[in-house]
Parts: sequence; C-alpha cells; structure tokens
Amino acid sequence: MSKANAGNFLEDFRLGQVIRHATPRTVTSGDVALYTALYGSRFALSSAATFAESIGLAREGQAPLDDLLVFHVVFGKTVPDISLNAVANLGYAGGRFGVPVYPGDTLSAVSTVIGLKENSNRQTGLVYVRTTGTNQHGAMVVEYVRWVMVRKRDPQAGLADSEVPVLPDAVAAADLVVPPGLTLGAYDPIQAGSPFFWDDYAAGEKIDHVDGITIEEAEHMMATRLWQNTARVHFNQYSESQGRFGRRLIYGGHVLSLARALSFNGLGNAFRVAAINGGRHANPTFAGDTLFAWSEVLERSELPGRSDLGALRLRLVACRNQPCAAFPLRADNGRDTDPAVVLDFDYTVLMPRR
Amino acid sequence: MSKANAGNFLEDFRLGQVIRHATPRTVTSGDVALYTALYGSRFALSSAATFAESIGLAREGQAPLDDLLVFHVVFGKTVPDISLNAVANLGYAGGRFGVPVYPGDTLSAVSTVIGLKENSNRQTGLVYVRTTGTNQHGAMVVEYVRWVMVRKRDPQAGLADSEVPVLPDAVAAADLVVPPGLTLGAYDPIQAGSPFFWDDYAAGEKIDHVDGITIEEAEHMMATRLWQNTARVHFNQYSESQGRFGRRLIYGGHVLSLARALSFNGLGNAFRVAAINGGRHANPTFAGDTLFAWSEVLERSELPGRSDLGALRLRLVACRNQPCAAFPLRADNGRDTDPAVVLDFDYTVLMPRR
Amino acid sequence: MSKANAGNFLEDFRLGQVIRHATPRTVTSGDVALYTALYGSRFALSSAATFAESIGLAREGQAPLDDLLVFHVVFGKTVPDISLNAVANLGYAGGRFGVPVYPGDTLSAVSTVIGLKENSNRQTGLVYVRTTGTNQHGAMVVEYVRWVMVRKRDPQAGLADSEVPVLPDAVAAADLVVPPGLTLGAYDPIQAGSPFFWDDYAAGEKIDHVDGITIEEAEHMMATRLWQNTARVHFNQYSESQGRFGRRLIYGGHVLSLARALSFNGLGNAFRVAAINGGRHANPTFAGDTLFAWSEVLERSELPGRSDLGALRLRLVACRNQPCAAFPLRADNGRDTDPAVVLDFDYTVLMPRR
Repeated sequence: MSKANAGNFLEDFRLGQVIRHATPRTVTSGDVALYTALYGSRFALSSAATFAESIGLAREGQAPLDDLLVFHVVFGKTVPDISLNAVANLGYAGGRFGVPVYPGDTLSAVSTVIGLKENSNRQTGLVYVRTTGTNQHGAMVVEYVRWVMVRKRDPQAGLADSEVPVLPDAVAAADLVVPPGLTLGAYDPIQAGSPFFWDDYAAGEKIDHVDGITIEEAEHMMATRLWQNTARVHFNQYSESQGRFGRRLIYGGHVLSLARALSFNGLGNAFRVAAINGGRHANPTFAGDTLFAWSEVLERSELPGRSDLGALRLRLVACRNQPCAAFPLRADNGRDTDPAVVLDFDYTVLMPRR
Repeated sequence: MSKANAGNFLEDFRLGQVIRHATPRTVTSGDVALYTALYGSRFALSSAATFAESIGLAREGQAPLDDLLVFHVVFGKTVPDISLNAVANLGYAGGRFGVPVYPGDTLSAVSTVIGLKENSNRQTGLVYVRTTGTNQHGAMVVEYVRWVMVRKRDPQAGLADSEVPVLPDAVAAADLVVPPGLTLGAYDPIQAGSPFFWDDYAAGEKIDHVDGITIEEAEHMMATRLWQNTARVHFNQYSESQGRFGRRLIYGGHVLSLARALSFNGLGNAFRVAAINGGRHANPTFAGDTLFAWSEVLERSELPGRSDLGALRLRLVACRNQPCAAFPLRADNGRDTDPAVVLDFDYTVLMPRR
Repeated sequence: MSKANAGNFLEDFRLGQVIRHATPRTVTSGDVALYTALYGSRFALSSAATFAESIGLAREGQAPLDDLLVFHVVFGKTVPDISLNAVANLGYAGGRFGVPVYPGDTLSAVSTVIGLKENSNRQTGLVYVRTTGTNQHGAMVVEYVRWVMVRKRDPQAGLADSEVPVLPDAVAAADLVVPPGLTLGAYDPIQAGSPFFWDDYAAGEKIDHVDGITIEEAEHMMATRLWQNTARVHFNQYSESQGRFGRRLIYGGHVLSLARALSFNGLGNAFRVAAINGGRHANPTFAGDTLFAWSEVLERSELPGRSDLGALRLRLVACRNQPCAAFPLRADNGRDTDPAVVLDFDYTVLMPRR
C-alpha cells in the first residue's frame, strides 16, 4: 500500500462520521501581512491595532485577523480529507464566525458528515459536511456547511447511507456572534474610510465597487499554499494542461477574498463578517482574469440588545473581465447565470449604527 | 449617490485644506519579511536585531523597519484622497525621516494642501501636498511634499485658490533627524557588508551597482497592495489594456525600493535614509523590465555635534533594460532624459565616519 | 577601484581561510508565513505552536522554524563571498542541523575554505567550504560542506594551495543532533497527518509523492531574495536572455524546499531534518516547470539512548515535467541521470517510533 494519501472517495464516507483534520496552524502577523499583500484589504479593524483597541477588540495590543483569513485556514485543513477527489465545490450554508482570532492563536478543524447522496450516473455523488474551526482553547472561530461533488473509487460500490440535509436559507440575526467586548462609542469613520453607517443602507440598494484587479498565477498559488490547501487543480499545470480547461483553476476562496477587498469601496464600515448564508462559485476563474465586484443589500436587521450595531445581509457578486456598473447577474435568457459571474455569495456583516 | 469613493478632482481641493487619511496601519515583522522577499534588501540595520542593538537602535529586541517601507505605507494612505484621479505623480521635495518605526507601531497620515494650479488646457492641474506620517504616539516618522497632476471633474469649474509653493532644493544637514540613541562605537563593517565609510566617498564619485533585477506582475502588485495603495493603473489589466501603454504601470515606489536595494552593492554602510530632497519617475516601468541602478555622490556633509556620523547626499538613478556601467542619464541631445532612465532620485543617507 | 563587490575569484581563496559573512538576519513569523506560502509545507512541528509544545519543542509559545528555511538563510549569506562567480554549485556533504531556530533568533554564517583545486583548463576550479550557521548565542544551527566551480579572474594566476578534502558519505546516526527537550509521549499522528511511523518504513522502499507543483518566476525570485541570496542567474532576465539557457535559473534550494513539501504526502511524520548527507542539482529548473518528487528509504537507524525516535536516511528525487510513479532516476543508457531529474538529495530525518 502506498504511504501517499489518495484522499477519500464517495464510498469512504459514512453519515455521522467525525473527521479530525490534520495540521493545526498557528496564525501570525506574517499571515496578516501576506493577506494584505494578496488582497489589499483596507478594513481598519484588521489593519490597525489602535483601531481594534478603540472598539474594544484588541488583545495584547494586537488587532484580530480578517475573518476570511480564518475561514481559508480552516477550509484548507479539510481539503485532504473531504475534497481531494472532488469534481466541484458546490455550495456553502449556515456559516457563522465565532470568537475573533489573533496572531499567535492555533486553529484546528473537525468535520462531521451530515449528508451523502449518489448521483444517478454512479460515478460521483454529494458529500455534505459541517466543519467547525476552533482556536487553541477549543472556542469556535468559524463553522459552516459545505457540499462537494466527489468521485467514487469504484462505480459499482454501494453507499452505506443516503441523506440530503435540510439547510437554512440564512443565519438568523439572533444567532450571529457579536465579538465580546465590542463597543462602538469611539468608532471613527474617518479612520475607517467610509461615512456610511448601517442606517444609510437600504434593502435592494446596489453598489458597484468600481475597481478591477487582475490575478496572477504566483498570487493565487501562494495564497492557496498559505492556507495549506492541497487541491491539485490549483497547482499542477502539467496535469491541468490536459484537463477540462487546459489551465490551473483558482481557489474559489481567493476570488472571495479579492471581492471582499474590492467591496471596501462602498462598504468600508462592514468591519466584521458574521455569517455565510450561502454561496456559489458560479464559474471558474483563471490567472490573467480581471475581477470586478458589486453588492446588493438583501436585508437590514437589528441585533438583540444592541442599538449601536446592526447586521446587513449582502449579496456579493464577482465578475471576470466585466465591469459591474450594470450589476451583471443573469444571462440573456433571464434565467441562467451571466457567464461573467464567477461568485455569487450571500453573507452578513456587522456595521455601526448612527 | 454612489457609496463608492470616486476620489477628489482638482476643483475639490482647497489651499490649506487638511486631510486625515483613512486606514491606520500596524506594521509588523510580516511586512519586514515581505519587504525582504520583494526587494532583497541587505542593509544590516533592518535585517538583524543584534546589529540594531549594537548601534543603540533596537527596541524591545527588534530592529527598526526599512525607511522606505515606512515611506510606502504613509504614501499608500494618501492615494485614495490625493491621487486617485491623478494623471502623473510629478515630484517630491523636502522629505525627512523622523523617529524609527518598529514592528507593532501603527502609522497614520495627514496631508495639507500647500499648492494648487490649473493647467492652461483646463482639463487638469497641479496639487501640492505636504504629508506627515506619525506613529501611535503622534511622533513624526516621515514627512514630505509631493505634487501630482490631477484631472478636473468639470473643465468649466473654477479653482478657489491658485498658488505654487516655494520648495527647498534639499534638506539642510542641520534639519536631518539622527535617531535618538544611535551610537557607532560598536559598528561592525564586516557584518554590514561594506568596508567603505563616509570618509571614503567624494562628491562627484559615481558607482555602478552592477546587478540587474527583473520585475514580475505578481511582485509589484503584492507590494503595492501591501502599502494599501489603490491607484488603479497598477492592478487592472482589463482597463489598462485599453490605456496609454496597454499594460499595468508599476508603482514608482516599487522601482525606488528595488534601486535602493541594488545600491547596497557599493553603499552598504548607508544604513539610514534621512531625507528625500527630490525625485522624479522619469519614465514608466512595466513587468518584464530588468532594472539596473547607479549612484552619484552629490555632497558630503558633517552633522552638527557628531564626529562619528556623516551625511551623504546621493543621486540614485534607475534604468530599465540598460546596464549602468556608463552611468546613463541624458539622451543623445544632451538635454532630455535618457529614455532608459525610470527614476532620478535625490536623497540623503547617514553613514558612519572613521 | 569600484566600491561594488565583484565577488571572489578562484585565486582569491586560501586553504584554511575563514570568512565571516555579512548581513546577520533575524528570522521572524513573517519568514515562516512566506515559507508556507512559497512551499505549502504541512509538517505539524513548524506549523503549530501547540504541536511543538506537545513534543517539548516550543519556546516562549512559538514553534521552531522549518529546518530548510534555516539552511537557506545561512546559505544565502555565503553567496556574495563564495559563489558570486560560480559556474555551478556542485554538491553538499556532511551537513547537520543543530539547535532549533525560533522567531526572533538572529542567524550568522562563517565559512572555512577546506579545499581548492584548479581545473585543467585553467579557467575555473573547485572551492570547498565548510559553513557554520549560528544563532545569536553562538550555538550551531546548521553546518555543511559545499563545493562550487568558480571562475578565475586571470587564467594565468597560480593557486597558493591545492587540496581536495575527504568527505563523509553520510552523517553517522551517533552524530545527529536530537533537539534538547524533545519528548514524543504525546505525539499525535492525526494532527501530524500521517499514520506511518519509523517502524513502518523499510530500506529500499520507494514512495511516489504524487502531487505536482508548477513554479512561477515571481515565486522563486521572492524566495531567493528572502534568503538574501544574490546569485545573479536567478534575477536578471536581461543578461540571462543572452546566457546558456536564455532564462533565469531557479535557485536549487527552492527546488529542494518544494520537493521536501511534496514529500509530506508519504512522509508526514518526518518532522525534523537532521542531516544532509549529500546532494546534487542534477539539471537546471526554470519557471513554468512542474515539479514532482519521489523518495527512497536508504537506511533505518536507531538513535543512541532513544527508543521513541529513529532516523531514516532518505533519497529525495525531484523531476521536472515528469510524474514520479515510475521513480525516474537513470537515463536510457542506465548510467547517466534521467534528464527529467533536477535534484538527487540524500538526507536524514527524525521520526517517532511506535
């Protein structure tokens, strides 16, 4: 038997199976610097310890890490066990961010298989997992459900279990985690870089984030390795040159972080990602593509017991090689997704109120 | 009104206007590592805590950051307010570095508009700003004047003010900041990597820095994002492919840091940049270009009250795709700049004396 | 005389000469993050402070650095003195890793010339150096012999000395440094990501590491600059376009670190590199190449006084644009090296025993 890990195939999973993922990861200010270099994020909370201090979220003089950085590290741990033989990463649901993560924290990930279903072709099927990322104290830092289409090793193999879980449309405002200690009395919108507060956004409002950013092979590979994500399609031009697209595919999370960074221009006070309600990598992205993004405000929610802080549910759409002044979403037939759309992401942020 | 920031146009500026720039930034050892990876700098002071300790400049066991790293972070903060609609970044003057910056410090920037002038075409004009970067204690870390050519939103709009400031040719030696605590009794030129001290340089001397370094798109974009510089021309191949050059332009500061790193080979004891007297990005630089650099010693100055330390005023010239053994500067007509020259920079360094 | 360093030529070296290399270097968590981004390493010991703590190797709450990161930093320091005028880096021998290195440590390097021999063409010759890297307390962190072919400045010049040193085939198990404090009672193979211990490997066993990784120009140049390695062939496309290969050559250590990271898949519990017995960069590697790797277990050795820990001597072979399921090594003639092989490396790791 080879000592190299070939990953799990569909028939290797069992409903209720709990998988402790390898390679705990201590995150540091080195990761923070690379995140800034790769995405250019400007949200003040993760940029400046002084700003974090001013709203009660500094710890030992340090700012918390960007929420998506935390998501990527946790996601990366799951790849060797869950999606090494995946055909596609299909969706996310029920994602919540927990306690903030600081330089020096060590993150680990555990997944539970909550759904399994063979496709009618018997070549592939769906695996649903709920993944929980924790810090070195066991506190939840992020949890989410994702489902992937996974190959079978043997098309004739049967599945022990078959179940499709019921997933929530969105995370309820009452279930969002407000970071302990957060106080907004000294929140400075000039430092944060935006005059617009929760009160200034309305459901249905659309924002073109204007800027475009071209992706290079070296960038997405450095990012994906930084998250210790081992999915082969991102790294191996030798094999991908013979594959479906002839090129390396970019990790969907790289696109997500670029779109979130672009969204600063219009959503500068969205200082905290609180939930991932859903999301879809609608089309593949490749090196050389220029990404643009736009947002739609889906819902504005109050938070229990907080008059200083509200939640905005947002749709974040990223397009390749297509500026977003016209908010591209649907194809000409009005039903399919516009082929320029690469990401359609439904998430919830926290924002100060007036 | 769109919530995305479109930047200021010429008619939006007022003489004397004070602009507090967004996004304070905590710099860390992550930034230091990236600076080394991007530029390959070998100046011992920012490379080793032990070396910094030996000359009295370590703080809590850490070396100070490279001076140009500090400049780039402060410069980056000013872009969304000053130069988002700039046609060109025309020059620098009167720049001084103040207290050294250490990992963990948080930098902020404030600019004052000190000059405004419309061009005769009424489409554009000049904006002069004095920018001051400070650390979390309010101490000046770098200050400088720069001027940019900025578009008007409306060619018919008038300007409230018009004034061209008088700028100094160079920063006087008496105005240079010597970092507090600096002592050179234990300065080790073997560790520093150069046997040449202040006394060994003569005005008029030229040094070819020999080495060449080719620039990649991923590198200059990672650098420019690291400084949270949002100028569009550096990132968006989709729009630049239709622009003047058909390609992304490289941030001039990236060229400056590469040239400074190349200058180590001949100026290894120039451990501290003390002043930016002037500077010009003479021609654009693109990915794929190979940079070379040469220096000329313009002036050797004593420093008040210091017999261990002197100032060298240097001209640093960077060329693209042109080795510098012949010290290229002027075009064949003897008047224009050689088209290979991309940077002509006048700055002052501190160097130990024998 | 030019103040730029032209490097040493063959006739500049003397047998027994001791060279203190410039530019001490403080390594930080920024270097660790970049190492992960560049190579995607997943060995748990350098990934997580908690894991390091569990086996007695954390210091002030931090994990030790990857051993090869330490090697690259020390190697980089030697380049300006030893190999700036090298035609080729020919081999390694007698390498040992000493005390672990932690973020905040400052590394320095000293080399002794232990061999010199002119080639019959009188244009070039061999220089053998023993290099020792130390931390800020003077403790050895890595030491090794390497030999390079170096140009002569003047073909007519004579050599003061001529001697070819006798080099060991391998480092004996009794000479390996086991990091002080190492205890394996709480070693968790699930966190480490591999169920295979020292006992499970047998001499002669070959492991295909399966995955492939494509190299970009920006990546190898950022890495090589991070190690402050100034060898010109890696950076200057302008001059290399006129050279032997028409392209920039990739630093052999970059290939080594990629191959070691690939080897995680099959050798996940090889948490510590203890020795470099030998090694050869068999062929050049260029940007765009996809690297694959395989390993052969050469020898399994007990360690004096340790029943919890053993040593594995491994051959690590990296190939360009050639998957390694067939363990490529020899060319069709059965004697020469397969032209796909770029690295043939003989090293020793520490691994837990059952």
